[in-house]
Amino acid sequence: MKLKDLGEFGFIERIKQGVTGGQGIHLGIGDDCAVLDLPPGHVLLTTTDMLVEDIHFRRDWTDLENLGRKSVSINVSDVAAMGGQPRHLYLSLGFPKDFPLEGLDSFIKGFLEACKDYEVTLVGGDTCSSPGPFVISVTVEGSVAKNDYVARRGAQPGDIIYVSGTLGDSAMALHLLQNGRSPDSFLIDRHINPQARTFLGAALAAAHVPSAMIDLSDGLLADLGHILECSAAGALVEETLLPLSPSFRIEHEKAPELIRLALAGGEDYELLFTVPPAKEDLLTGISQTTALPLTRVGRITGENLKLEVRDANGVLYTPSRGGFNHFR
Amino acid sequence: MKLKDLGEFGFIERIKQGVTGGQGIHLGIGDDCAVLDLPPGHVLLTTTDMLVEDIHFRRDWTDLENLGRKSVSINVSDVAAMGGQPRHLYLSLGFPKDFPLEGLDSFIKGFLEACKDYEVTLVGGDTCSSPGPFVISVTVEGSVAKNDYVARRGAQPGDIIYVSGTLGDSAMALHLLQNGRSPDSFLIDRHINPQARTFLGAALAAAHVPSAMIDLSDGLLADLGHILECSAAGALVEETLLPLSPSFRIEHEKAPELIRLALAGGEDYELLFTVPPAKEDLLTGISQTTALPLTRVGRITGENLKLEVRDANGVLYTPSRGGFNHFR
Repeated sequence: MKLKDLGEFGFIERIKQGVTGGQGIHLGIGDDCAVLDLPPGHVLLTTTDMLVEDIHFRRDWTDLENLGRKSVSINVSDVAAMGGQPRHLYLSLGFPKDFPLEGLDSFIKGFLEACKDYEVTLVGGDTCSSPGPFVISVTVEGSVAKNDYVARRGAQPGDIIYVSGTLGDSAMALHLLQNGRSPDSFLIDRHINPQARTFLGAALAAAHVPSAMIDLSDGLLADLGHILECSAAGALVEETLLPLSPSFRIEHEKAPELIRLALAGGEDYELLFTVPPAKEDLLTGISQTTALPLTRVGRITGENLKLEVRDANGVLYTPSRGGFNHFR
Repeated sequence: MKLKDLGEFGFIERIKQGVTGGQGIHLGIGDDCAVLDLPPGHVLLTTTDMLVEDIHFRRDWTDLENLGRKSVSINVSDVAAMGGQPRHLYLSLGFPKDFPLEGLDSFIKGFLEACKDYEVTLVGGDTCSSPGPFVISVTVEGSVAKNDYVARRGAQPGDIIYVSGTLGDSAMALHLLQNGRSPDSFLIDRHINPQARTFLGAALAAAHVPSAMIDLSDGLLADLGHILECSAAGALVEETLLPLSPSFRIEHEKAPELIRLALAGGEDYELLFTVPPAKEDLLTGISQTTALPLTRVGRITGENLKLEVRDANGVLYTPSRGGFNHFR
């Protein structure tokens, strides 16, 4: 069957049949709006992302099932960064007229599997054709107890900067692909199927550990920069402390300058958070519960917006603010 | 200045400065998520729309300021159709690299003006470049008292079918444009700057008048069809009762078959709702308060999914289900 035979409403019906679960949903897919309840005492957390073919992804570098998964993960990651539980998703798709139905089915399969993993329910969206690229727009709503959400703005001089997991794996995969090389399966997976750290974000927030938090989408330096702007603070990052995966280290040993991929490469989707020294003790238990390494990579200083890095030779430098700029 | 000199964050800062108002907003634009409160006792109403250049709009048929307004109106219209008050908007834009900054400024101007009109606040979004068309994705969150929301599913045999305003004006404008003619300013305005009926929707819902409601985006027959599917009912529509504007009538008199634009033309953004006969008396006051004509166009029948139309000669016929199908 082709997409045009199935029709818009047939396609929506097909998606609807794959949707399961969800609490507090009065009406999901199929009315003018979704109608929803939040848990009492919670605030609503909402964020949205747009993914455009040949800007955010290439169909020859990712299969559509993983693209479906990633569309959920990168969106849900922003709810994790506030310490919240993702609850409802909205998916809008604009696709080329000749888009294969099997491709869309794969995308939806990955999308709905990721929804189950994160315990979030697809409750709405929009579909249309596109005269150009495949376009994906995802909005997620989550919630968190009113006094528990963590913003970007609370970092204080003396706070310790932590990151979860390892840094630069996704950027390393992209770097190798762009140079015609084949990344190993670990690096590829980190690039095409990143995991949002929802359990970690919620555990940190519930324990009131972080003074500020953000997810790493634009790269460590750029995202730390956002925290500094919102907190009116500075930071010192130690290159030698950056947590690197074995796969990353193999490439890094051959080309030491690739440390920039851990500093400024995007799409890690790990959490970056600042912790007052008095609360550092609480991290051991949280790291064990979530089975994620939490690594100290630097500290917050009182020098407004000054972001410095100490390299492997002990030399301090001021990096250019890296990260991905869509308007360049 | 060009867009690439302003940069992504400069552009977001520019938008942020134009945002005003809003209640229950802990955090708006500028963190990983917006953080929001809803009024106590309310349910959350959320919907999303994607607009793609050359599919939903042509830049030579609309100016960008009106496109900004329309992007808000068509989205907010879905909240009106549930009887809710729109509260928060999220705007994602993908634009061609050479997109003029003045064009984006015009779009944002219209967008934010419409936000003020509907008392809704822009609290988040995403921006990126597009290798193809200009792409707009808007999500709106609204709310309504828990027992007041109106779904598509409540229509009962014997209920009277009402519509607000006049039908087919937007489709008539498009029809004339497609035939190289210039619609008058009334028809053009109905096409490029439709108004969402938020006050009407809220007033109807608060008075518990409609048994079912939907906004007219796909055309009367298609949208009535959605109500019939959700309500497991049938309907009879009277062509002679359709409310037509003076501008529509001028064209209709010359070509009577254009009545199909009032039956099946899309983008009216009026409300279609069904009313138990015992509650019809309440409509006079609501029509006066909202300064909108509310017109009886037919009735709900017990014949499951049977949708019939009586034409001007008194002849009954079963129309093909019209409306816009993006997959054709």
